[in-house]
Amino acid sequence: MLRFLTAGESHGPQLTAILEGMVAGLPLSEHDLLDDLARRQTGYGRGARMAIERDRARITAGVMNGLTTGGPVALILENRDWRNWREKDIPPFTVPRPGHADLTGAIKYGHRDLRLSLERASARETAARVAVGAVCRRLLAEFGVTVGSYVTMIGGVEASLPPDPTPDEYRRRFEAAEQSEVRCPDEAASAAMRERIRQAIQAKDTLGGVFEVVALGVPPGLGSYVHFDRKLDGRLMGALGSIHAIKGVEVGPAFASAARQGTEVHDPIMRDEAGSLSRPTNRAGGLEGGITTGSRSSCGQP
Amino acid sequence: MLRFLTAGESHGPQLTAILEGMVAGLPLSEHDLLDDLARRQTGYGRGARMAIERDRARITAGVMNGLTTGGPVALILENRDWRNWREKDIPPFTVPRPGHADLTGAIKYGHRDLRLSLERASARETAARVAVGAVCRRLLAEFGVTVGSYVTMIGGVEASLPPDPTPDEYRRRFEAAEQSEVRCPDEAASAAMRERIRQAIQAKDTLGGVFEVVALGVPPGLGSYVHFDRKLDGRLMGALGSIHAIKGVEVGPAFASAARQGTEVHDPIMRDEAGSLSRPTNRAGGLEGGITTGSRSSCGQP
Amino acid sequence: MLRFLTAGESHGPQLTAILEGMVAGLPLSEHDLLDDLARRQTGYGRGARMAIERDRARITAGVMNGLTTGGPVALILENRDWRNWREKDIPPFTVPRPGHADLTGAIKYGHRDLRLSLERASARETAARVAVGAVCRRLLAEFGVTVGSYVTMIGGVEASLPPDPTPDEYRRRFEAAEQSEVRCPDEAASAAMRERIRQAIQAKDTLGGVFEVVALGVPPGLGSYVHFDRKLDGRLMGALGSIHAIKGVEVGPAFASAARQGTEVHDPIMRDEAGSLSRPTNRAGGLEGGITTGSRSSCGQP
Amino acid sequence: MLRFLTAGESHGPQLTAILEGMVAGLPLSEHDLLDDLARRQTGYGRGARMAIERDRARITAGVMNGLTTGGPVALILENRDWRNWREKDIPPFTVPRPGHADLTGAIKYGHRDLRLSLERASARETAARVAVGAVCRRLLAEFGVTVGSYVTMIGGVEASLPPDPTPDEYRRRFEAAEQSEVRCPDEAASAAMRERIRQAIQAKDTLGGVFEVVALGVPPGLGSYVHFDRKLDGRLMGALGSIHAIKGVEVGPAFASAARQGTEVHDPIMRDEAGSLSRPTNRAGGLEGGITTGSRSSCGQP
Repeated sequence: MLRFLTAGESHGPQLTAILEGMVAGLPLSEHDLLDDLARRQTGYGRGARMAIERDRARITAGVMNGLTTGGPVALILENRDWRNWREKDIPPFTVPRPGHADLTGAIKYGHRDLRLSLERASARETAARVAVGAVCRRLLAEFGVTVGSYVTMIGGVEASLPPDPTPDEYRRRFEAAEQSEVRCPDEAASAAMRERIRQAIQAKDTLGGVFEVVALGVPPGLGSYVHFDRKLDGRLMGALGSIHAIKGVEVGPAFASAARQGTEVHDPIMRDEAGSLSRPTNRAGGLEGGITTGSRSSCGQP
Repeated sequence: MLRFLTAGESHGPQLTAILEGMVAGLPLSEHDLLDDLARRQTGYGRGARMAIERDRARITAGVMNGLTTGGPVALILENRDWRNWREKDIPPFTVPRPGHADLTGAIKYGHRDLRLSLERASARETAARVAVGAVCRRLLAEFGVTVGSYVTMIGGVEASLPPDPTPDEYRRRFEAAEQSEVRCPDEAASAAMRERIRQAIQAKDTLGGVFEVVALGVPPGLGSYVHFDRKLDGRLMGALGSIHAIKGVEVGPAFASAARQGTEVHDPIMRDEAGSLSRPTNRAGGLEGGITTGSRSSCGQP
Repeated sequence: MLRFLTAGESHGPQLTAILEGMVAGLPLSEHDLLDDLARRQTGYGRGARMAIERDRARITAGVMNGLTTGGPVALILENRDWRNWREKDIPPFTVPRPGHADLTGAIKYGHRDLRLSLERASARETAARVAVGAVCRRLLAEFGVTVGSYVTMIGGVEASLPPDPTPDEYRRRFEAAEQSEVRCPDEAASAAMRERIRQAIQAKDTLGGVFEVVALGVPPGLGSYVHFDRKLDGRLMGALGSIHAIKGVEVGPAFASAARQGTEVHDPIMRDEAGSLSRPTNRAGGLEGGITTGSRSSCGQP
Repeated sequence: MLRFLTAGESHGPQLTAILEGMVAGLPLSEHDLLDDLARRQTGYGRGARMAIERDRARITAGVMNGLTTGGPVALILENRDWRNWREKDIPPFTVPRPGHADLTGAIKYGHRDLRLSLERASARETAARVAVGAVCRRLLAEFGVTVGSYVTMIGGVEASLPPDPTPDEYRRRFEAAEQSEVRCPDEAASAAMRERIRQAIQAKDTLGGVFEVVALGVPPGLGSYVHFDRKLDGRLMGALGSIHAIKGVEVGPAFASAARQGTEVHDPIMRDEAGSLSRPTNRAGGLEGGITTGSRSSCGQP
């Protein structure tokens, strides 16, 4: 069983994460974490702070001679501009912003200076989770599992992507997303999204969006129907739903499927002459009865 | 901290649930559980078995003289038709149905007779969770919290419901849903949904749908942003996503909001002359930064 | 991961346990649980109620056709004399007994009638745990692991048992304990213990004691030093320490070893000519660094 | 609910701990942790490394302006001599020491170089737990709870301490222990213990011992009998039993009490004329039915 805790404020000295339960003998270096941390910092229209940070996670425990030891892995991400902030005399922050934890945090914890909430409620916390995720990605790689993602909509501008993608098409999307400033694999939509963001910035507004996460190479049999908290769909929805700004999650095209008939939605199980089973479609997002089917699992979140 | 386990197969002798962590001194009787169990069994077009069952939960632990003792609460739901099944000589079930745990369960656990999966993966398991939930509803009632729900779409037929409902309007919907065979508060849509279901049954097909769950009277301050697994939105999405057939969850109108601008989505915080804060809207589903705002929380799921 | 919950009051209708996380395909019947439940009910000088009960656990979930399904296992132990008690008009119990949860339970939960504490704090609850343990014993048997126990002291009367027992000697003790009314493998001590108990009963007093639990056939490598809550010694001490009336636990002869030198206590690792490792002694109770050594694990508790 | 994870190897760059679930508004500074960290490093006959270290924990998260924020608290303890070790070319360590995790760790994780086990299995890990405990001690102080400890036996040399100590006597012992190089409040025994240790060092041997931990000012009502894993005695035994080298734990004088009669062991509940209850003795270690009595709780461990 893997478990982890994260700690750290947005303008504190560092973010810290401990990942406990890792196997021994997995090759792991700080280099393995760079790509995921860098990806979190890219994006058209992101705040200036991103340029300052250039996150780098130090591994201070759980790895010796380039291999995991089986002990807890500690990850440290220094906040490079902390020293600048420490010197400053920052007046208390007292006007709560809607859509943030400013007001709810103040009510819950009795904070008068809202900075006590927003420093921890900041999206910067996800950097620690990204580092933890990058270690897990290294473990999944040993089993041939790849996880990728791309943006399908920003502020009403939707990407045009062919339906029923093959694993190769998914891989192409992952790569195309890496080339796009808005992480959208559709070039024309990318340009329109950038323009939409530019307008929103000018209007001092923000935009919502939708992205898709796809795991390729997932073996069948992960998760279970035997108890509600072992169902992998529920666990994935809970995990993704815990990310800042995410207010909805679907496994496969759930909301669209909800308007259809079972025969149009369920993925038929075909049996060929040799007796082996396959499914021509994957509308269930690779999960049936809370267990992976061995098809691609995919989730979308606004 | 409340925790619970459920056990039981669809055609076994009984379902069992244990709810641990309940307070002492809460008035609780088997009568309190009847309405919720009955609601699970209603619905136009449901299987014939529903008529046989008429679920009733016995409380066999944790309550003395009509009050909870602080000890674990045990709930037993007998399967009335178990004796009929026990006598029967049921041939192994070997053709996996798509959209169920038949195939994934067989792969995971090595079952040859698929009944070993489907007996537990059956939606009947939710009866135990409904009983547990009914106990929790009794606890919430002490704090003035009411949880209700209604159907907004079945098989493409959508209910027409006015936007921005008040608590009273929500209560009206809960009551109207109780009167509708398809649990939809819009009468015209109810009729159309029944017709849609009739057609699907005739075509030996099934239908998807969407429902909304709303908690009224929720105090501010539940949940937290301080750690990912304390965020109440993530926890609600995980819990709802663990229910059979649910593949997507949104908190507030998340997927619709994703196409809009922040100023159109975030709920402004208003301050009146006396200095007290209020919000004219609740598009965040009553949750900001993973903490309840004290506005209504609502989730929709397909 | 196995987890379980128990519920039930001493004079309520039944005890209930749910064991979640069991593997599929394990042969399991109600018959497998009888011996352990019967052992709990034997013992010279035990209350008259033991005779009434003759515990029998019904398995109402998680087993089909004699094999576990992978789903949660539910165990029901009816309290045979419940009906007798239900009719009675029992006056509130208001004088707290020392050494029980009567007073502490009343303080914690606000109970006025102390029966609300003592019904759950009763040692009868352990019957549910014994049933859960018997299922786990069935699983351990598949790996050749046997767990046995015997009494070494009652009320100051100590058994005389040769030091450094072999696995065969342990097995002999388990069997001899089954023949003794006080579960002591030393016949002479057994007689003296019975006499000691007879005196205590006459004096309306009670007695303390010490017993030893030994697991044979345990493979090396269970538990871990990597995190405090994975150390098997700590987990065993916590589990045994949660049993009613147990106030102390040692792994191996810990308190005696505490007065000695390391060279007299640590179990030397010998290497024979073929290079294979063995240990002539097992003073560590089969656990080093929180991990099983593959030697016998043993714990004693007063 | 408080939970924590620790990470770090004995000769790695640093130890790390994250404590999650802390309240907001608690005054906390790095200074508060110094005494407990220093105490861990004292002791006659301890290795030379202790002198190098002089542990100091940095708080890198969860505290702003001297008060906890409610967010996770991160604690960093640098290993001062890490740089020295990093340069060294250390040959693999291949001869397992009895009484350590060297062999069991190698078996479990497949390590060939035993350093991969011993670096994490090292007692140095407890420094991180001491830092976590010091934060918790700060929280307990707000409720008037004090936790102290002292040594009662080393290598067969026992302290002579009067029975039935009052809270003031306990406080005197805590203070006397601080003055003793072997943390024993009995001066004559202290001298004999030092001599015993000197002999053992000369003989290149080690010694066992027993210490007592006492919590003063504990309110009644902590822990519960309602479920086995809520019993505070079991939880304390599990927590203490997870510390390196601890193989036995008793709550109150359990092993001695085991040889006595109930009337000699249980703490009578007295009722004075005003109706208030008290207990003249505390042989139960302040815990009845898994719940604190409000008397002193004490545990001893070899």
